[in-house]
Amino acid sequence: MTQSGILDTEQAPDLERARPADDVTRVAVSTVIFSLRPCADGAAVVLPLVRRTRDPFQGLWALPGGWLDAAEGLDAAASRTLEETTALSPSYLEQLYAFGDVDRSPTRVVSIVYWALLRPDEIADAAERENVEWFDAASLPRLAFDHNDIVDYALWRLRNKVGYSRIAHGLLADEFTLAELREVYESILGRRLDPANFRRQAEHSGTLIPTDRFRTGSHRPARLYRYNQDVELADRGPLTGSSTK
Amino acid sequence: MTQSGILDTEQAPDLERARPADDVTRVAVSTVIFSLRPCADGAAVVLPLVRRTRDPFQGLWALPGGWLDAAEGLDAAASRTLEETTALSPSYLEQLYAFGDVDRSPTRVVSIVYWALLRPDEIADAAERENVEWFDAASLPRLAFDHNDIVDYALWRLRNKVGYSRIAHGLLADEFTLAELREVYESILGRRLDPANFRRQAEHSGTLIPTDRFRTGSHRPARLYRYNQDVELADRGPLTGSSTK
Repeated sequence: MTQSGILDTEQAPDLERARPADDVTRVAVSTVIFSLRPCADGAAVVLPLVRRTRDPFQGLWALPGGWLDAAEGLDAAASRTLEETTALSPSYLEQLYAFGDVDRSPTRVVSIVYWALLRPDEIADAAERENVEWFDAASLPRLAFDHNDIVDYALWRLRNKVGYSRIAHGLLADEFTLAELREVYESILGRRLDPANFRRQAEHSGTLIPTDRFRTGSHRPARLYRYNQDVELADRGPLTGSSTK
Repeated sequence: MTQSGILDTEQAPDLERARPADDVTRVAVSTVIFSLRPCADGAAVVLPLVRRTRDPFQGLWALPGGWLDAAEGLDAAASRTLEETTALSPSYLEQLYAFGDVDRSPTRVVSIVYWALLRPDEIADAAERENVEWFDAASLPRLAFDHNDIVDYALWRLRNKVGYSRIAHGLLADEFTLAELREVYESILGRRLDPANFRRQAEHSGTLIPTDRFRTGSHRPARLYRYNQDVELADRGPLTGSSTK
């Protein structure tokens, strides 16, 4: 609690060198990947976790991630550590929040958490990795570190965001029926939606474009829709283009 | 680009000790404070900056901030460094984004950026500090580090958020006229809004509660409104309560 303030900010490498090692704050990157898995009830929100093979929290499940390399940007670190641990390379990857409570780890670690959405077919294409399993977000075991809190926060953001953005598209194929779209919303929100109300709202949202194609099968044919591509899926505003730095 | 992944995450203090000092990534905290200042055109979005008194970027203006102390959480560090540099203690302080491009500073620094809104009367109450000045967000000079990019991002988030939340309340007194609320929106969005359309949308939003009081003056009396307090100003979801950690 010194009076250093901005005057010292982003300088003082000499001071850093003199610090004891237990005073060092390190930066890690973790990613919450959400997808949907069909279940008796419709679909469940699922996420991949990695089993820890050493202490702290040996044997517990944790979010995929790793240390930030001094020579790479945050977005690059998120992509790299995710690919290394799970072999997943989602196209939609967005910074979620930085978690930095003092007691969240035995040593001082600030974790920059990213999140991503994967369509079911993107999961099927990924190579299997040892110590990686998919879990139902609604019934997680006790995770390592504060990772239960992180998943809770990501689920909350997902539920909020689905209300004002076309984020559900990240969980769907390019073309989908309104029933399939409603199922995504129901899985995220954890409750049933009235089919007629949902259809009316979806058709008036301006974000859906009807196609000339229909899904046929055991039910009556259902029209396929696609999202209006003029609306960015992950609108990062002025950050666009800085992701590879 | 090692194959470390999650296995090493949040451990390895011995490795850290052996690293050369120029491989160390340090964590800083900065805050973007937005307020409104009356001007000929209505009101301008303004923010406080701190003049740097040493290199790098000596003499340039920068966002208020400082180093993260190993013994404090991120929210606490944001409040402390803001108070130390500007004497400001906003009630609304929210994490915005972590900036970590490799080349954003001569040494490797990840900055966790917070943002806050201040009502004009909260600025007037604050003690003046040397090397602190308020700038019009629309005409900033070249700032230190990547702080111009950070302000651009914060402005973009402000413009987006004003569309789906009651964030404008953070810039207003407890009671306000619809013309005053419209002026806040116009300042943030940078364009004129049709008064009749704005009134209709505001009255149907469900977030405003009309009072029995009126603003009187040179114009005809205008009804005062207040925000519905059932809606959280800064809805942090499951993060609520962790801010003091």
